[in-house]
Amino acid sequence: MTNRRRRRQDVPFGWEGVEVRPYKPDTGGDGGAPFKDLSRQVLFDRSDLACQVRLFDIEPGGHSTLERHQHAHAVIVLGGRGQCLVGEQVLDLRPHDLVEVGPWEWHQFLAAADDHLAFLCIVNRDRDRPQLPTAAQLDQLSLDPAVAAFLRLGSPP
Amino acid sequence: MTNRRRRRQDVPFGWEGVEVRPYKPDTGGDGGAPFKDLSRQVLFDRSDLACQVRLFDIEPGGHSTLERHQHAHAVIVLGGRGQCLVGEQVLDLRPHDLVEVGPWEWHQFLAAADDHLAFLCIVNRDRDRPQLPTAAQLDQLSLDPAVAAFLRLGSPP
Repeated sequence: MTNRRRRRQDVPFGWEGVEVRPYKPDTGGDGGAPFKDLSRQVLFDRSDLACQVRLFDIEPGGHSTLERHQHAHAVIVLGGRGQCLVGEQVLDLRPHDLVEVGPWEWHQFLAAADDHLAFLCIVNRDRDRPQLPTAAQLDQLSLDPAVAAFLRLGSPP
Repeated sequence: MTNRRRRRQDVPFGWEGVEVRPYKPDTGGDGGAPFKDLSRQVLFDRSDLACQVRLFDIEPGGHSTLERHQHAHAVIVLGGRGQCLVGEQVLDLRPHDLVEVGPWEWHQFLAAADDHLAFLCIVNRDRDRPQLPTAAQLDQLSLDPAVAAFLRLGSPP
């Protein structure tokens, strides 16, 4: 039953009246921002609420773009399994994990090879555009073996 | 494993490093604001994020305060079952339902008699204090039989 005030899941991680959008990086143009097999849904977007609430769902083996920006992310895993890179840390993710991404921290989300990864991401409505890493920044990040292994999964050659 | 960037559930709907606070209405003083068997956790509270993310967990048969305010709520049910009153509508709630509470809409959340109700509530950090209903406003709300039945559950005599 559709209701103006309450929206239900009609499929797992899909809600009535909520458009499933192909992921489009905010970096402007296609800009070479690599991502794979993920969708974005805007669950709450009200002019009287200072944040948007988005749901990202990444298919098995898929990943978001490696990026950084001034604005912060508050992330709540809703379903599936995966990993994320935040700053210089690689973290395993499971449902109801809370993740904070601070200003200018490099970050990327990756679904497990055999599971999807669905998470809420809460951000300020008013926010800056992400930056992508330069080759030199990627090299710097990859000095840590755990980060290098993560990045190989998120950006296979 | 405690991590600055990722916090895990150590018990269902309880997170490492997150204090479980007794619910305190924001109406100032005890003010006679009735509530029963619920706890509040602030999951995200950053000065660079314009919203707070809170987790309310209501025990079976418990309820939040019936109130209204200028600021909006974005609600995502995480676990359990219950009902809410929003405006003049009584809505059943189950996991992953999305609920919007607009400015000055009366609202109250109620757990099922035999289940808890856990939900995320996203609000502007900068917000006004709630108002409680006057007796006349309660009478007005109770003109609708479904609302009256809900209010009897939420405020037993």
